[in-house]
Amino acid sequence: MNTIGNIFRLTTFGESHGTAIGGVIDGCPAGITLDFNAIQQDLDRRKPGQSKLTTARKEDDKVEFLSGIFEGKTTGTPIGFIIKNKDQKSKDYSEIKDTFRPSHADFTYEKKYGIRDYRGGGRSSARETANWIVAGAIAKQIINFIKIDAYTSSVGNIYCLKPYQDLDFTKIESNIVRCPDAIYATKMIDLITKTKKEGDTLGGTITCVVKNVPIGLGEPVFNKLQANLAHAMLSINAVKGFEYGAGFCSTTMKGSEHNDIFNEDGTTQTNLSGGIQGGISNGMDIYFRVAFKPVATILKPQATITKDGKKTILKPKGRHDTCVVPRAVPIVEALAAMVLVDFWLLKD
Amino acid sequence: MNTIGNIFRLTTFGESHGTAIGGVIDGCPAGITLDFNAIQQDLDRRKPGQSKLTTARKEDDKVEFLSGIFEGKTTGTPIGFIIKNKDQKSKDYSEIKDTFRPSHADFTYEKKYGIRDYRGGGRSSARETANWIVAGAIAKQIINFIKIDAYTSSVGNIYCLKPYQDLDFTKIESNIVRCPDAIYATKMIDLITKTKKEGDTLGGTITCVVKNVPIGLGEPVFNKLQANLAHAMLSINAVKGFEYGAGFCSTTMKGSEHNDIFNEDGTTQTNLSGGIQGGISNGMDIYFRVAFKPVATILKPQATITKDGKKTILKPKGRHDTCVVPRAVPIVEALAAMVLVDFWLLKD
Amino acid sequence: MNTIGNIFRLTTFGESHGTAIGGVIDGCPAGITLDFNAIQQDLDRRKPGQSKLTTARKEDDKVEFLSGIFEGKTTGTPIGFIIKNKDQKSKDYSEIKDTFRPSHADFTYEKKYGIRDYRGGGRSSARETANWIVAGAIAKQIINFIKIDAYTSSVGNIYCLKPYQDLDFTKIESNIVRCPDAIYATKMIDLITKTKKEGDTLGGTITCVVKNVPIGLGEPVFNKLQANLAHAMLSINAVKGFEYGAGFCSTTMKGSEHNDIFNEDGTTQTNLSGGIQGGISNGMDIYFRVAFKPVATILKPQATITKDGKKTILKPKGRHDTCVVPRAVPIVEALAAMVLVDFWLLKD
Amino acid sequence: MNTIGNIFRLTTFGESHGTAIGGVIDGCPAGITLDFNAIQQDLDRRKPGQSKLTTARKEDDKVEFLSGIFEGKTTGTPIGFIIKNKDQKSKDYSEIKDTFRPSHADFTYEKKYGIRDYRGGGRSSARETANWIVAGAIAKQIINFIKIDAYTSSVGNIYCLKPYQDLDFTKIESNIVRCPDAIYATKMIDLITKTKKEGDTLGGTITCVVKNVPIGLGEPVFNKLQANLAHAMLSINAVKGFEYGAGFCSTTMKGSEHNDIFNEDGTTQTNLSGGIQGGISNGMDIYFRVAFKPVATILKPQATITKDGKKTILKPKGRHDTCVVPRAVPIVEALAAMVLVDFWLLKD
Repeated sequence: MNTIGNIFRLTTFGESHGTAIGGVIDGCPAGITLDFNAIQQDLDRRKPGQSKLTTARKEDDKVEFLSGIFEGKTTGTPIGFIIKNKDQKSKDYSEIKDTFRPSHADFTYEKKYGIRDYRGGGRSSARETANWIVAGAIAKQIINFIKIDAYTSSVGNIYCLKPYQDLDFTKIESNIVRCPDAIYATKMIDLITKTKKEGDTLGGTITCVVKNVPIGLGEPVFNKLQANLAHAMLSINAVKGFEYGAGFCSTTMKGSEHNDIFNEDGTTQTNLSGGIQGGISNGMDIYFRVAFKPVATILKPQATITKDGKKTILKPKGRHDTCVVPRAVPIVEALAAMVLVDFWLLKD
Repeated sequence: MNTIGNIFRLTTFGESHGTAIGGVIDGCPAGITLDFNAIQQDLDRRKPGQSKLTTARKEDDKVEFLSGIFEGKTTGTPIGFIIKNKDQKSKDYSEIKDTFRPSHADFTYEKKYGIRDYRGGGRSSARETANWIVAGAIAKQIINFIKIDAYTSSVGNIYCLKPYQDLDFTKIESNIVRCPDAIYATKMIDLITKTKKEGDTLGGTITCVVKNVPIGLGEPVFNKLQANLAHAMLSINAVKGFEYGAGFCSTTMKGSEHNDIFNEDGTTQTNLSGGIQGGISNGMDIYFRVAFKPVATILKPQATITKDGKKTILKPKGRHDTCVVPRAVPIVEALAAMVLVDFWLLKD
Repeated sequence: MNTIGNIFRLTTFGESHGTAIGGVIDGCPAGITLDFNAIQQDLDRRKPGQSKLTTARKEDDKVEFLSGIFEGKTTGTPIGFIIKNKDQKSKDYSEIKDTFRPSHADFTYEKKYGIRDYRGGGRSSARETANWIVAGAIAKQIINFIKIDAYTSSVGNIYCLKPYQDLDFTKIESNIVRCPDAIYATKMIDLITKTKKEGDTLGGTITCVVKNVPIGLGEPVFNKLQANLAHAMLSINAVKGFEYGAGFCSTTMKGSEHNDIFNEDGTTQTNLSGGIQGGISNGMDIYFRVAFKPVATILKPQATITKDGKKTILKPKGRHDTCVVPRAVPIVEALAAMVLVDFWLLKD
Repeated sequence: MNTIGNIFRLTTFGESHGTAIGGVIDGCPAGITLDFNAIQQDLDRRKPGQSKLTTARKEDDKVEFLSGIFEGKTTGTPIGFIIKNKDQKSKDYSEIKDTFRPSHADFTYEKKYGIRDYRGGGRSSARETANWIVAGAIAKQIINFIKIDAYTSSVGNIYCLKPYQDLDFTKIESNIVRCPDAIYATKMIDLITKTKKEGDTLGGTITCVVKNVPIGLGEPVFNKLQANLAHAMLSINAVKGFEYGAGFCSTTMKGSEHNDIFNEDGTTQTNLSGGIQGGISNGMDIYFRVAFKPVATILKPQATITKDGKKTILKPKGRHDTCVVPRAVPIVEALAAMVLVDFWLLKD
């Protein structure tokens, strides 16, 4: 239950303020020459403290590979890895220890397990997603013929209104909010900066576009390609929704408008379907959109309760992101890569 | 890959026009006295030909249980069942045999498998969902303390604008479109009737509300309750999106607006989270919304291609739903029940 | 938990005296032209009433395929099948209903589930193995380049003392005990006949030899080829032991005697390893031996207890095998084929 | 494919001469106060260099837990752990690099993966079993009401001829060969010492006895308790066979001799069945025997081949066990504990 994937499988462990987080990657084919810089680069895109927009918490996020790689190449055996937790400030956790933060997992963990590592959210911390970046970065290298690009398509009510086809994905990393359009990016950055000052937080959406997907990935009934993508995306901590192709908009279209008419070569004139038919990739671009709720930790006092059901006030404290969306861009990519490589290896 | 669930597992088989569809339900606890009428009732809510809105295709959809039940009670061993395909008209399939219907799975099946049972869509037919109804109806009986209600919340651009709290779920079955509000229901029916005459089709959304969920269902990282719900819903043939709690709307809210403040008893004053925190149920209502694209089979001629990549015109033919949303209501419920019972049994 | 296999998966259902038994085969590749006679032939080799040695219970054991096959070819979608239970004599089960038969599963089922279908042993009946034959027969056709031969290598204390290399496997079906050596076969038949008259029962062993196995099947640690073979064989109702290669005999050998020295082509001069090194096939013959306990149902009165813990005498009754080993030969083959095809498809 | 267990799951990684080995334990219940000394003790029973009988290779085998434990208690989240490889002598591996050692996994790994970490056998090294000890030691603490004792029941042709009921299991650790009978133990030690001098190696058997097993563990068809035990035991590197209850001996018994007659309390007068009926524990002792082949690495020159298929002589070298059986005793226990806890948690 703590594993994702069927052939290419990631099993993880780790709490925010424990010794280390890490995981085991199974099913990675043998003989892949790994580009370790590319892996680190994706980790750096996710890591805290990378820009003025993100939390000041500092983590090196250096991955150490412990197995499964020999002389730079994968051996086909499990790849074990750890990422040490550097920034474990010996903070005073007495408040959080006995108090449930609103819209966090403190309450549910306490009730489910009767015990929790409350330091920094423990297992429920998004720090876990660093593990996914590692596996996703390796997945990308296995299916390097597939091109996966995610970007921030909205922050709060600032939407990047251009269709993805009109965007230049090489510009995604050109700004700290990871929106390829400079004008919208500036607006998003302004909004985050302003909201940060208010001590409040923001949500947003990420759009992910996958090109050059081979035809035939996905299973017809219970492991449809879109179902596994949705599963993966809804595993991200703050995610509240997923849609692919025309998504929720398709519900207001008529069949005659929505149907994608074939070209003679099997491609389609439109691609409202989002590259998948009957659970199986059809070779057109796969694109989907993921909704992120606003960050639950705000820098305003909040009424809440203690473990004993007593009312209390949670005082604002700590270093937190105002909006996680920009840092979540590589996470979305990593999960998409993991889902795709899994089906690719299953097919192969 | 053809199974859903971890403890309560459904494995299915069957093509639209084969001898029978069916499945195996594993992990059903022993000693449950089954209400067979309730199972059949859910099948009847899904079956074709139930109202003037749905396809005229006639199927009895009578389930035959072959094992796992003794003297009316479950024995803890696998429940095998079949539903015979009655309405297998010896139609002329020569056209569909060699032609790819737009926005159907014909093309992807052909490319993935090199062979397909083209009659009625074969395995890609939504007829498969009758199997899910059977398993879901049994799931409901295991967790009969949990109340699951789904309803049509939009058809095309007709939205039921009331929040679910203002709706009377006992009225869901009072009209053929399965919207509990009579006024919106009438508008939806009118739209479907009108669109049917045009030979076109519609999409829509279903909202599902789950009450009395025990605290603690769901896993913290890779089998979050919402992730498995999303996986299940995206397995439905026409589904293009899923959101829970405040969903996509949450992306435009601030943290201070979105956070659910606790009451002293651990319930929350608002429930924008949708009953799940950190992947685990918190005891509040779980609610989510599922987006259905318009039906791909329309009663208008469409340009398309043959297997050999030749242009052709697909002539409208056959009996099809204008809008599957009303019939999909029990499917959404069934899948929700399966996901919940699975976590319930895992927890227990 | 009711499924065997990872890629080629069989999920089954059915009780001895229910309507039907059956299963779902997932992961069968598309485009295989099935030889239905070969499937039925294996079923006939297993079925009761096939010779004077076996139980007089009569079952046609005709398999009906319900899906996954189109115009004689597999489509890549799940193959659902059923085998109807014909010989459901409306016997008086009142005795067995409340009594635990010694060395049967009555007691454990009752304690585990609190309910059981006592008719003919219900789910614990070896009738289930007919399902395995179906899946195994299909598996054999997928990997038809691999040759799997099982035979009766002992009945009671009559051992076929020749090494398998000296046996002519084409003679396996030449006698009703399925031992390829005519002289030992006669001795075995005599022993069974004599023991039958005594109202007693026998065990024995089956040896299975798999030739032409590609190099590289099996996983290095937790799904070693031998581990999955052992798992499969220990799933057969009466099986008490499994050994491969030199097996238990290897424990008394020295390393210098047991090691298989390589030829220049990578084959080995001896094959005490049994075709597997480090969990992975090495291309040499895989051979293993499976131990069957004597049949628990004897035609002698036995002291036992009722459900209420009262002493009682179980009177001999019914039609039962004196020795299941000959009928288990195709079962061993079927399971071996399923394990091999699973690794073959995983590798591919 | 690199995971064992369904609820209590162990996923491992690591090569003999890499940085570290380790694993992730999923499904460990929350709130267990771990006895770390007991875990280390089991590691010490397995580790090399513990007595004059074992390899001189020195490893501390200190386990470091990285997650899932908070203030000494399990939290219900994954337990990540590593064991660093201390004794990575910068040996000259040039010979082994290009040569296939007889009856080792060098050849099959090379053929399967096209690459291998040849240092010390890499992933195929029995060093992996240290990971299992960690998980097994935790499993033992969860089901501490179950008593698991394994012991060396034969080395070469020296058999401990007493039935397990006549042995005092508190004496197992009283000698370096782990046979609870002092006289047989001495004979075994003598044999190992003598064989060591000859530069040869030995196999043997381990018997494992499990007491106080609750009734009802195991699944009726495909995850029979004995099948999962067999799977686990056949995962140990040198194991060639498994039998439980009367095992291979049962094949020469008659039904009237082999059947276990019930006492009024549901226990049985004999226990030839070995504590399992129909795949499910019946509350009697579970006992089984595991066969180990002689160690493949001998201190005599052996003819073999290079990667290029050239004949060569493998010169004896290095530090190796003459007989691994005594060190494998805790491994057998650990795997038995993992299988049992898995079914225990599934049942619970």
